[in-house]
Amino acid sequence: MDQTRLTQLLNDVKNGHTEVDDALNQLRHLPFEDLGFAHVDHHRALRQGFPEVIFGQGKTDEQIAAIAEKLLARSSNLLVTRTTASAFERVKAIEPAATYHATCSAIAVRKDETIHGNGLIAIVTAGTSDIPVADEAAVTAELMGNRIERIFDVGVAGIHRVLSKRELLQSAKVVVCVAGMEGALPSVVGGLVNVPVIAVPTSIGYGASFHGLAALLGMLNSCSSNVTVVNIDNGFGAGFVASLINRG
Amino acid sequence: MDQTRLTQLLNDVKNGHTEVDDALNQLRHLPFEDLGFAHVDHHRALRQGFPEVIFGQGKTDEQIAAIAEKLLARSSNLLVTRTTASAFERVKAIEPAATYHATCSAIAVRKDETIHGNGLIAIVTAGTSDIPVADEAAVTAELMGNRIERIFDVGVAGIHRVLSKRELLQSAKVVVCVAGMEGALPSVVGGLVNVPVIAVPTSIGYGASFHGLAALLGMLNSCSSNVTVVNIDNGFGAGFVASLINRG
Amino acid sequence: MDQTRLTQLLNDVKNGHTEVDDALNQLRHLPFEDLGFAHVDHHRALRQGFPEVIFGQGKTDEQIAAIAEKLLARSSNLLVTRTTASAFERVKAIEPAATYHATCSAIAVRKDETIHGNGLIAIVTAGTSDIPVADEAAVTAELMGNRIERIFDVGVAGIHRVLSKRELLQSAKVVVCVAGMEGALPSVVGGLVNVPVIAVPTSIGYGASFHGLAALLGMLNSCSSNVTVVNIDNGFGAGFVASLINRG
Amino acid sequence: MDQTRLTQLLNDVKNGHTEVDDALNQLRHLPFEDLGFAHVDHHRALRQGFPEVIFGQGKTDEQIAAIAEKLLARSSNLLVTRTTASAFERVKAIEPAATYHATCSAIAVRKDETIHGNGLIAIVTAGTSDIPVADEAAVTAELMGNRIERIFDVGVAGIHRVLSKRELLQSAKVVVCVAGMEGALPSVVGGLVNVPVIAVPTSIGYGASFHGLAALLGMLNSCSSNVTVVNIDNGFGAGFVASLINRG
Amino acid sequence: MDQTRLTQLLNDVKNGHTEVDDALNQLRHLPFEDLGFAHVDHHRALRQGFPEVIFGQGKTDEQIAAIAEKLLARSSNLLVTRTTASAFERVKAIEPAATYHATCSAIAVRKDETIHGNGLIAIVTAGTSDIPVADEAAVTAELMGNRIERIFDVGVAGIHRVLSKRELLQSAKVVVCVAGMEGALPSVVGGLVNVPVIAVPTSIGYGASFHGLAALLGMLNSCSSNVTVVNIDNGFGAGFVASLINRG
Amino acid sequence: MDQTRLTQLLNDVKNGHTEVDDALNQLRHLPFEDLGFAHVDHHRALRQGFPEVIFGQGKTDEQIAAIAEKLLARSSNLLVTRTTASAFERVKAIEPAATYHATCSAIAVRKDETIHGNGLIAIVTAGTSDIPVADEAAVTAELMGNRIERIFDVGVAGIHRVLSKRELLQSAKVVVCVAGMEGALPSVVGGLVNVPVIAVPTSIGYGASFHGLAALLGMLNSCSSNVTVVNIDNGFGAGFVASLINRG
Amino acid sequence: MDQTRLTQLLNDVKNGHTEVDDALNQLRHLPFEDLGFAHVDHHRALRQGFPEVIFGQGKTDEQIAAIAEKLLARSSNLLVTRTTASAFERVKAIEPAATYHATCSAIAVRKDETIHGNGLIAIVTAGTSDIPVADEAAVTAELMGNRIERIFDVGVAGIHRVLSKRELLQSAKVVVCVAGMEGALPSVVGGLVNVPVIAVPTSIGYGASFHGLAALLGMLNSCSSNVTVVNIDNGFGAGFVASLINRG
Amino acid sequence: MDQTRLTQLLNDVKNGHTEVDDALNQLRHLPFEDLGFAHVDHHRALRQGFPEVIFGQGKTDEQIAAIAEKLLARSSNLLVTRTTASAFERVKAIEPAATYHATCSAIAVRKDETIHGNGLIAIVTAGTSDIPVADEAAVTAELMGNRIERIFDVGVAGIHRVLSKRELLQSAKVVVCVAGMEGALPSVVGGLVNVPVIAVPTSIGYGASFHGLAALLGMLNSCSSNVTVVNIDNGFGAGFVASLINRG
Repeated sequence: MDQTRLTQLLNDVKNGHTEVDDALNQLRHLPFEDLGFAHVDHHRALRQGFPEVIFGQGKTDEQIAAIAEKLLARSSNLLVTRTTASAFERVKAIEPAATYHATCSAIAVRKDETIHGNGLIAIVTAGTSDIPVADEAAVTAELMGNRIERIFDVGVAGIHRVLSKRELLQSAKVVVCVAGMEGALPSVVGGLVNVPVIAVPTSIGYGASFHGLAALLGMLNSCSSNVTVVNIDNGFGAGFVASLINRG
Repeated sequence: MDQTRLTQLLNDVKNGHTEVDDALNQLRHLPFEDLGFAHVDHHRALRQGFPEVIFGQGKTDEQIAAIAEKLLARSSNLLVTRTTASAFERVKAIEPAATYHATCSAIAVRKDETIHGNGLIAIVTAGTSDIPVADEAAVTAELMGNRIERIFDVGVAGIHRVLSKRELLQSAKVVVCVAGMEGALPSVVGGLVNVPVIAVPTSIGYGASFHGLAALLGMLNSCSSNVTVVNIDNGFGAGFVASLINRG
Repeated sequence: MDQTRLTQLLNDVKNGHTEVDDALNQLRHLPFEDLGFAHVDHHRALRQGFPEVIFGQGKTDEQIAAIAEKLLARSSNLLVTRTTASAFERVKAIEPAATYHATCSAIAVRKDETIHGNGLIAIVTAGTSDIPVADEAAVTAELMGNRIERIFDVGVAGIHRVLSKRELLQSAKVVVCVAGMEGALPSVVGGLVNVPVIAVPTSIGYGASFHGLAALLGMLNSCSSNVTVVNIDNGFGAGFVASLINRG
Repeated sequence: MDQTRLTQLLNDVKNGHTEVDDALNQLRHLPFEDLGFAHVDHHRALRQGFPEVIFGQGKTDEQIAAIAEKLLARSSNLLVTRTTASAFERVKAIEPAATYHATCSAIAVRKDETIHGNGLIAIVTAGTSDIPVADEAAVTAELMGNRIERIFDVGVAGIHRVLSKRELLQSAKVVVCVAGMEGALPSVVGGLVNVPVIAVPTSIGYGASFHGLAALLGMLNSCSSNVTVVNIDNGFGAGFVASLINRG
Repeated sequence: MDQTRLTQLLNDVKNGHTEVDDALNQLRHLPFEDLGFAHVDHHRALRQGFPEVIFGQGKTDEQIAAIAEKLLARSSNLLVTRTTASAFERVKAIEPAATYHATCSAIAVRKDETIHGNGLIAIVTAGTSDIPVADEAAVTAELMGNRIERIFDVGVAGIHRVLSKRELLQSAKVVVCVAGMEGALPSVVGGLVNVPVIAVPTSIGYGASFHGLAALLGMLNSCSSNVTVVNIDNGFGAGFVASLINRG
Repeated sequence: MDQTRLTQLLNDVKNGHTEVDDALNQLRHLPFEDLGFAHVDHHRALRQGFPEVIFGQGKTDEQIAAIAEKLLARSSNLLVTRTTASAFERVKAIEPAATYHATCSAIAVRKDETIHGNGLIAIVTAGTSDIPVADEAAVTAELMGNRIERIFDVGVAGIHRVLSKRELLQSAKVVVCVAGMEGALPSVVGGLVNVPVIAVPTSIGYGASFHGLAALLGMLNSCSSNVTVVNIDNGFGAGFVASLINRG
Repeated sequence: MDQTRLTQLLNDVKNGHTEVDDALNQLRHLPFEDLGFAHVDHHRALRQGFPEVIFGQGKTDEQIAAIAEKLLARSSNLLVTRTTASAFERVKAIEPAATYHATCSAIAVRKDETIHGNGLIAIVTAGTSDIPVADEAAVTAELMGNRIERIFDVGVAGIHRVLSKRELLQSAKVVVCVAGMEGALPSVVGGLVNVPVIAVPTSIGYGASFHGLAALLGMLNSCSSNVTVVNIDNGFGAGFVASLINRG
Repeated sequence: MDQTRLTQLLNDVKNGHTEVDDALNQLRHLPFEDLGFAHVDHHRALRQGFPEVIFGQGKTDEQIAAIAEKLLARSSNLLVTRTTASAFERVKAIEPAATYHATCSAIAVRKDETIHGNGLIAIVTAGTSDIPVADEAAVTAELMGNRIERIFDVGVAGIHRVLSKRELLQSAKVVVCVAGMEGALPSVVGGLVNVPVIAVPTSIGYGASFHGLAALLGMLNSCSSNVTVVNIDNGFGAGFVASLINRG
């Protein structure tokens, strides 16, 4: 039941064409989706500056291009994660402003460059192999209107590396911390800052890393109280939540 | 090397009692702990309103009382998690303002009731068995100077329950979402709000819940992008991070 | 917004006290819970013959008695699972018709003995140690108005045992099959009947049974296409779904 | 020992050519397979409308074609699951009525379109990536003579989506609910309907989804009592059991 | 249908009281259990010397005594595994010949001491903590009529220990090899002998032994081709299979 | 120290060229390998009829051919497991009697066809997909001089299939039972026979079969006492142990 | 065959009482244990300063006292791990020099206080709860004749703590690093020193620590190349290996 | 703040250009990295003879060549692990002394052949398939200036093989022990020597080896107290720690 029909119903009540009891009955069966859709609109207002997002994995180039075209009709900014260079070619044909982030296989369209975040988002990695996941977080946060700072390759085996970045870290309003192998970096970073640290385990490693399980468990058991965790390799999720916190 | 000794060293350089090269050498071996301690002080200033925290598990009543006495000498607020009623008796003897939160086995001292949080923290549970963990989050957040709202027993099997609290949820600046069994609630809540959702898996359940593993995995794989996760039963961590976000 | 307020609103529209646009606005924010609650009522009608259920685990005797009293005020039949003999004493004081099923630690009140099921529910176990879980399924199915048949201790190591019950099994409209250890019985039973088999792994076993994991995995991988699975030791769930199928 | 030989034996007894004791002895060693085969025939009668099924995985195109040809000689309907387009070409050469369902890589022959199901089977997915598994369930259910309704992409992160389909869901006699990642949808759907929900975890996801384990555990721990579970990606099994329930 | 009824049926055919077709029909529905029961009898003959066995875990003293009494009426030898001293008292009251094996908590009645085994069964342990499981194997094998030899505490960290028993090991017809922790002994023993080695992992260990999982996996991956494995702590099973092999 | 040198030493003692103490000292340091090598020879005598075996996985065609050539110089029979057709071509060039078993990717040379086994080895599979593993067991057992009987595709979902082979099974001296998915067949077969059953889990299945883990756990927890287990897909090991038992 | 018999044999050869061939034959069957035993003696000489060790877990007080008495007859130093205060009372009655280390439940007798280690062993813990495991390592290392230094409660969440001990750490010849929860400390310590770091995961933690698994995996995946790992809670093993390295 | 600037600051204090308080303030914010970098230099001195190391996995040939060129400018020795023959071609173009170790896919440059190790490092494997991992350890140890001895293919199923190498093993100062499948070799070797044994599990095996997990768990649970463990397939780490111990 869309708004037109609802207006009609209320007018019918007003005009006496429909009895209150009948109207009551129709309202009781008011489909949730309509209310829901209204909420979506309402939400959209609150979500100003949020990009549209396509999870590219498992979608064909054609599908990505088709969805992108539809979304770009109503949104200035678009993010396609886990996609390919060939999908990018198709999206670029639709929207010349599209750029391809090869490290993290993401397509971004950022026509609205308004800054929504209050502070800085620091994005930290333990090693160079963690950079693709960190870049996904970075692209996400940038598209959502944040200033970000990349601090890469500061793993705990050379503790002076992360310590040397202490002041920069302490200037951030939220930190995204990306690490594979033993996933120890978020605990150290969490001890250096007073803000939320979003830990992203990566599948980097071999043997008993079990495709990121070791890093994931390490982060969940962090002795730093300001650490929360997202799924293995989920750079997008980390960048998304960091953006929400930075707007707070 | 504390500040006095450092001042002395510089004065010695100024007065020519110490050569620049010697001073250089002493400074090169400047112990980290001193710098570190300075940082702690600096941090403490930033941490205004943070309670002192004792993780009670594995500590005797005597140990808890002794640490509590020491910490209360310098802090208005104190939290003891995973403790016992008998430990509370000892703490109360030291500090009459102490209260015991039996549901989550926590002792709280809250003499400074300043509100530091900007908005509301909503603390949601799927079932009544999840309440102890939620209460630990609630006590933590209150001690850190936040207004909180408890929304309990709104699990997804009766979806109208959580939907009926939608407006309250949407008024929060951050949501702590506590659930055992399949851990599905954070995904639903995450879809209803535009703010960070901190998901806490609980060990509630039996059989293939594997002591909270099912809920943990469910939350890590949430299809809602605004969900991050803490350790199983870690109400304290969730309350702590929520407080940080609420100050942001 | 309850029905009274909704009627009032429509009357206001009818009488011209409220403009259509205002009413529209109020309706757009119509809280879900009210609709939801209506649905519950509607559901309740469909659920005729469903007992009220209390999951006893983790609840005190007092809590169980209090909830039971409340539920018995509006329902003829009640089931309390995973409870204790002492909780039963309290419930019996409230409702003398209550009976205690010691094997599965369940309290049942069955004042309405209407049969709702179309056919027979066969409840089968591999060993005698699986009987408590099977009894929970049996009590549940009986309270939901079904005729049941218990076929116990017919594990596959003595295949003649289950074969000798073939005709009885083939007369059932749905089979609940309870087994621990290797959990092989549902596959054999599934091959003997043309109806749904609900497999319940139990935590019976030791060593590499890993508290029911071996049986669970075995059942999920059953080569019989008519087998579905519930959680380890979840006799209640199996009895519940079997009852739904038997009403179909 | 086939029926001819058994008749002969009894005639021999009748005619006195064989002593009762000798006959007794022969009967005692009556091979099970013959009885078994009789049962199969008997079963087949009960199974009217069941398609023949070939599990295609691990079989060559030649093998599939050969088996299909043999089965089609005695059956109107045939299903080949987990097969390939090239196998389809071979089957189509044998049976022009064969159709290929590319989304789920299944071949179907449906020459007998009799409806055996009493009601509607709703097949629901959380995401678009779950559709191949859902389609396998759908094709299976259709071949077994059921009316089905597809409700796709209604995952819980946008709860209004599934709520908007509530009435359609509530009109079904059984629901197949397919979801990867956290696998939360069956719990929500289970709370909306009063009929059995067959949950199918899919291997969709990454990282801590562990190839469908997260969804599987979530579904096994569902707080909705009407949920049972089949193996990861087992759309065929779900469609099969749903068909059995719908005939009930 | 027991033998009497079957004889009657055949006589009826012989006498013309029953038509061949009717008899055929009755025979077609000949219940499996009767054939099955016949098989059991037949089996029993083959099983001469097999003790009756009660798996004591989870059974009350009363239940054990009752079953023991029943079984002792028809069998000379009886084994009760995983039981208690108090159960033994009750069994001894029924059968004074009963003995209690405290190390492995087993009750044995061995009135028939016939030797059925052709050769020697060697029962080997890595450590002293593995002895209870080994003793269960030993008691089982002795009750089944075998000569056994205990070789305890010859773990691989002191390789000379097992080497010093090489000739004794090589004189056995089958070896039971019991080990916890890393479970390496069966591989070494397997390389020393030319006969089957039945490996029994035990739950002895701590930490990453995961209650016997480490030993179990080690044994399953043994590089000695003559090793097979039974469940963790399953001394009974190992003794049972060893006895079967020793009769071969 | 080889035999020549040892003889020389003893002659030196005899002739007084070496003192007893010196000889004693030399003997104390007698390298184990020499004794060991003697044992190998001794063992070899016991092992009459054992084929030489090459585990082909991870070896190049060249390596396999080179080892095969060396082994064939001293042995009539040879088995190469987990190899390739191209390796076979090289081996066949060396030994024209070589045959290739494509189902299990094994090369066999069987020039000595002496029967060493006392009885029959039955090799049973649950499904057709399990045949490659069963064939590896069969080839192994044949090369070791056994009569074998293949009983394939008798999985428990159609229980009449395995029951119809009961007499054949009961005529075996040892049974190898190969099954994937839920791995239930060994429990049923174990209940039908009085001889050892060697269960081989296979990696056949999908989803929660976890590459054979479900079948492995099922077999380890078998309620039939005569079942022992080898590694997933280890047809060679099963055939090897079965051969040892059959010689017993 | 002990040395006396071997001497006799050689004398017999010398005297012509035994032919060389006969002697050869007897020597070929020379039991390994004798050589082995000789090696044990030889080893013991090398092991000067090694204490005798009793693994107390699962042993009664009586057993511990009996073994201790036997070992103390030939050794100055003794260590009993995982034991009890009551066992200590019994040992003290035998050897008044015995001391009890309550934190790690160990009994030590150290009558030979010779220092065998070349340098210092640093024993580090992340938290105070890890101290019992660290103390077991410390007691072990002290009994083996080492100077040790305890550095406790320097977990990575407060990185200045471990940094402040950098010079002390760098003065050690080997470091034992004990940590539960995320087990990150060894990676940081490993980066600060140039010597081997023996990492000991502890079972300290809750939820997703899975009884030390998280710490174990973290340590195995350490990005510091000088880290090796022992079993969860294995303080003894760490102290033992550290002592070996310190003697090197 | 580098040393130049620090000297300048102290000179300014000396000359009165900077007040002590200002200097104090600048020093308080002294960036950690500078101290850190100083430490690295200091460390480098201690690390004389350490090769530079590039972990090749996941790096392109170009990246490896570029890093290698940079490192070779300041170091005589270089190791690239987990790389390719094509990367070697590029490195060889830069440094003709580079050699390629095909078995373990490592590039080595060893222009400084100084021996730093005090004793011998024995590198032992259970099977031939473990050699690549052992070779990685060997190349690492050689580049770090050690004499090594390879003892390959001495797995425990033929125990005489490792026993025959006992004296060689006992001459080593540290042993690296590489094994897949059940990983039993380190326990045996650990019992034969009095020095540290570094156990390296390999991913060699199939089925229940779970890619090295079985070997890893076996080694962690070793009953030999002198065994420590590194990650699955981590030959480099084992060679590195062995080198550190050998310098001790």
